[in-house]
Amino acid sequence: MHLPLASRAADLVGSVIDSSTSLLASQTHDIVRFAMGAPSPEAIPTRTLAEIGRDAIGADAADAFDYAATEGDPALRAALVAELAGTSDATTLERITITSGGMQGLDLACKLFVDRGDLVVVESPTYTNGSATALSYQADLLEVPVDGDGMQVDVLADLVDRAGRPPKVIYAIPTFQNPSGASLSLERRHRLLELARSWGSVVIDDDPYGMLRFEGEPVPTLHELAEGDPLVFSVRTFSKIVAPGLRVGWVDTTPELQPLLINAKQAMDTCTNLPMQRLLARFLDGGHLDAHLATQRAEYGRRKRAMQQALATHFSGRARWTDPEGGFFLWVTFEPAVDTEALFPVALAEGVAIIPGNAFSPSKRFPDALRICFATTPPERIAVGVERLARAVDRLGTT
Amino acid sequence: MHLPLASRAADLVGSVIDSSTSLLASQTHDIVRFAMGAPSPEAIPTRTLAEIGRDAIGADAADAFDYAATEGDPALRAALVAELAGTSDATTLERITITSGGMQGLDLACKLFVDRGDLVVVESPTYTNGSATALSYQADLLEVPVDGDGMQVDVLADLVDRAGRPPKVIYAIPTFQNPSGASLSLERRHRLLELARSWGSVVIDDDPYGMLRFEGEPVPTLHELAEGDPLVFSVRTFSKIVAPGLRVGWVDTTPELQPLLINAKQAMDTCTNLPMQRLLARFLDGGHLDAHLATQRAEYGRRKRAMQQALATHFSGRARWTDPEGGFFLWVTFEPAVDTEALFPVALAEGVAIIPGNAFSPSKRFPDALRICFATTPPERIAVGVERLARAVDRLGTT
Repeated sequence: MHLPLASRAADLVGSVIDSSTSLLASQTHDIVRFAMGAPSPEAIPTRTLAEIGRDAIGADAADAFDYAATEGDPALRAALVAELAGTSDATTLERITITSGGMQGLDLACKLFVDRGDLVVVESPTYTNGSATALSYQADLLEVPVDGDGMQVDVLADLVDRAGRPPKVIYAIPTFQNPSGASLSLERRHRLLELARSWGSVVIDDDPYGMLRFEGEPVPTLHELAEGDPLVFSVRTFSKIVAPGLRVGWVDTTPELQPLLINAKQAMDTCTNLPMQRLLARFLDGGHLDAHLATQRAEYGRRKRAMQQALATHFSGRARWTDPEGGFFLWVTFEPAVDTEALFPVALAEGVAIIPGNAFSPSKRFPDALRICFATTPPERIAVGVERLARAVDRLGTT
Repeated sequence: MHLPLASRAADLVGSVIDSSTSLLASQTHDIVRFAMGAPSPEAIPTRTLAEIGRDAIGADAADAFDYAATEGDPALRAALVAELAGTSDATTLERITITSGGMQGLDLACKLFVDRGDLVVVESPTYTNGSATALSYQADLLEVPVDGDGMQVDVLADLVDRAGRPPKVIYAIPTFQNPSGASLSLERRHRLLELARSWGSVVIDDDPYGMLRFEGEPVPTLHELAEGDPLVFSVRTFSKIVAPGLRVGWVDTTPELQPLLINAKQAMDTCTNLPMQRLLARFLDGGHLDAHLATQRAEYGRRKRAMQQALATHFSGRARWTDPEGGFFLWVTFEPAVDTEALFPVALAEGVAIIPGNAFSPSKRFPDALRICFATTPPERIAVGVERLARAVDRLGTT
């Protein structure tokens, strides 16, 4: 292309979702969708949202389609503070800035903190679009392995020692991590905050799934443990708990950052769409979130167990998988190894969409793993999908 | 602040709108709002949008709240191509990427093309948030003066000669420019494209107001004149022609850029909110845009004339102002000089909100000018606002 592209253009990483979407579109039969990390259509409270929408954006709300305040509509910010009271994400009005989904929260954090060549810690595996955002600001990524208790914080300390310079930013998904499903233990959360303080590193506390716990005991969020430490920049979203198409999320930061957040956001998209902010404010004020979450948690637990059971049926002795207490994802590792990038099109041809492990590692450390989302698919279809996956693995052969 | 801010943080420029918003909130009496470049509440087709919304995001549209495709919902992209057929913005499906408002179009262009220290040409005066976006990518700005025929393209050639290096990007608002209201003449449009080709510069063709012509003869857009030249990156939005709160716009680019646009947008906000895309698709498919624009054009012409008449009553011999054939803005220059930054709070105290000229120039070249928006205010209130402005100028005294 004879265009004067910026140097970062080479670092703009696409999500594997997109290629899978176009591949999906080319398939004629009915695909079981384990790929995208989206709530299932029946898990989105479409009817309630549509009913509330009639008032929120009805002709009685004359300014519903006007510009919103850049920091967010006052009604939504207030509803959010009320909703979060008493939770591990309890906060105050001056800490909240509404964003266009959690993704914009990550974009804002990188805009404020990442210079070209800065060291940014990411979990390994990590959320593709999270590391992609840091790369779009030309960060040097340091991948820190994840185990059953989340990011291995002792390894982090060693790797930073070896790097010879402190990270500017530590990007963490502490709860029901995407893609592994692992949660950072309480001890490691404390240790991570200690390390960040000693290095002066900003911690991006990305927690889209924390409200979707269906088993086990809650662990305090990094936000709560940090007790207002300005180094902790918390990113939240309504995408997984209500609906992704709203594109509404929020960041919870030290109030002194808000003027900079407003300036940065004005140069990104001016403000977040107002009708969906108003809709969410009424959804929260109407007390719909708690009931909705209770239903979803129970259903997602059922779906996780259905997926694990199907995996046990088809992959015992050939693979191991994680056992998350919430969220959307299982992480499957094949032993003996299976080339999951080669598996991807074969699985699609068999009628099941998965994401190869390497999509979750900038340095492609997971050639024999894959992510499957249990949230999008009802239990009986999950069984069908896993059976198709087993057929695909058999067709591919093990290496 | 003891936070490891990125070097660009110092370049994150806020819009003056925000300070005026908070100042406005502190006023008790009824302000005439000439500041914000927003359609007036009665100019937004709220009733039609709300009615269409009942179906578009109603319970019958099961996936209305799901993720949208990153490049945009197919229904909206198709409706847009159909809507633009036969206009100066006629295009094809593969050139269109839906954005979260025009602002995100500018963010995407800078993300793809602007490296730190790159020369970026902006008009002087220019759109605050446009130059702010380039600054957030650490561009070196080159301000090129605007006269009644838009950007002075011969001066541009001289300034680039003197700079000793070609601009990476030329940011132009060719039609009913924000803030001056001026339109780039046909001859200058051709010359600008010639210069850009000779330098290999990308032209950001930002045209939010082009469909709001109420007088004079249409001039072809840069998009049309460029005949598919990959150097022209056209940014459009529904904010001014339908409603700003939707946060939906589009970019029209060479198709080979779309994969990069998708990657960049995924690292910004994943996708644009789906309900408002669906709403707009139905608004366009239902043929509502043409009728709406016809009404708005007539009304905006009436409002411009009302504002000019009021200015003639109060400021003859003390100021001059532009005579745009469309769009939202008049640009007023005081002779003898008036310090419009000092005028701003005095005007607010008198009950009228304006924006000082220096907000539209990174190097603050317009201390004695101001922008007033005629679009937001009905004619009889415009007269009141201009009278209040005259009182404020009298109170301040001339310098």
